[in-house]
Amino acid sequence: MTLDVIVIGAGGTVGAAVAGALEAHGHRVVRASRRGPARVDLTEPATVDALLAAHGPVDAVVCCAASGGTAPVAGSTDAAFFSGLDGKLTGQVELVRRALPHLRDGGSITLTSGTIPDTLRDAALGRLINAGIEAFVPAAARELPRGVRLNTVSPGWIRETLISLDMDPAPGTPLDEVAVCYLEAVEGSARGRVFTLD
Amino acid sequence: MTLDVIVIGAGGTVGAAVAGALEAHGHRVVRASRRGPARVDLTEPATVDALLAAHGPVDAVVCCAASGGTAPVAGSTDAAFFSGLDGKLTGQVELVRRALPHLRDGGSITLTSGTIPDTLRDAALGRLINAGIEAFVPAAARELPRGVRLNTVSPGWIRETLISLDMDPAPGTPLDEVAVCYLEAVEGSARGRVFTLD
Repeated sequence: MTLDVIVIGAGGTVGAAVAGALEAHGHRVVRASRRGPARVDLTEPATVDALLAAHGPVDAVVCCAASGGTAPVAGSTDAAFFSGLDGKLTGQVELVRRALPHLRDGGSITLTSGTIPDTLRDAALGRLINAGIEAFVPAAARELPRGVRLNTVSPGWIRETLISLDMDPAPGTPLDEVAVCYLEAVEGSARGRVFTLD
Repeated sequence: MTLDVIVIGAGGTVGAAVAGALEAHGHRVVRASRRGPARVDLTEPATVDALLAAHGPVDAVVCCAASGGTAPVAGSTDAAFFSGLDGKLTGQVELVRRALPHLRDGGSITLTSGTIPDTLRDAALGRLINAGIEAFVPAAARELPRGVRLNTVSPGWIRETLISLDMDPAPGTPLDEVAVCYLEAVEGSARGRVFTLD
């Protein structure tokens, strides 16, 4: 069955791979990002509403956008410290609420959380964001109407990213395996699941 | 050793018990709340700064304020749905950042997270908030300067609250046991710990 899917963050590494994998499976994909014709910024709810109104109703919304920054708890400005919160955390929660009226019965929403290596410093807010999404998704999934499913993918380290950073690629997951997780969330029957890849 | 402690949310059930327990151990307590002379509202950072400037430096800041509301993911207004986020989640994170300069070396900050029963509906944002705090605390605790400790207490159901609601008190923890947890966080050596009471 061909599905209509909006991929938010399609300009990023993961988003581009997910959009490509969905198209390879015959689905119709709207590639939305902060630049380009299908413009959207999770920190600006009006752009989310405009995107959904322009391209809905759809069968699935996939969000691969918004990576949280890292900043130390002590000594950083409020703006630097809380960057990421508006987009990745409240932005993705807002997206769920705003996408609902634009999803067909039995449709799905797939968010992106993440895993932060123990060695990464200054990541307290990033951990808060990922844990927040992963606690929200199973609880919110139970509430959604009309059979709409909600899941999140935690991609962990990606092999291609590690290679581009000249780091050891061994702990990374290949990008195509990451994309398969999003495909499973869109095409399968999972509900309230946290897909973890590391 | 007598400690100077600010208790935020001292007008609430838990906050009043914690303030009383600290005083019973000989500590000097400033009872701060949204009403009264030591006024503070976690959703208004300027009131947090004013409180700390007026009463610091101190040895400990304990936050028992801010309970998250519950609202359905679908069909509630943004204001109703996100109530609790500003106070309990970002408000407590802000409190950590703002309290640091007002804490003596080796001082402590104790936050409040929580546990939501599986049977409670419309609690997706509440789960996000509690999970966010409990992921933030261990990570942020590793970053804090001058030996400052950071912990959180998850009080769960309180016996006295259940009785006041005419519910079965059996699953509840007596208030004085809850207060003992906060005392241990203030007087002990825990760092980055989530004290869970259920």
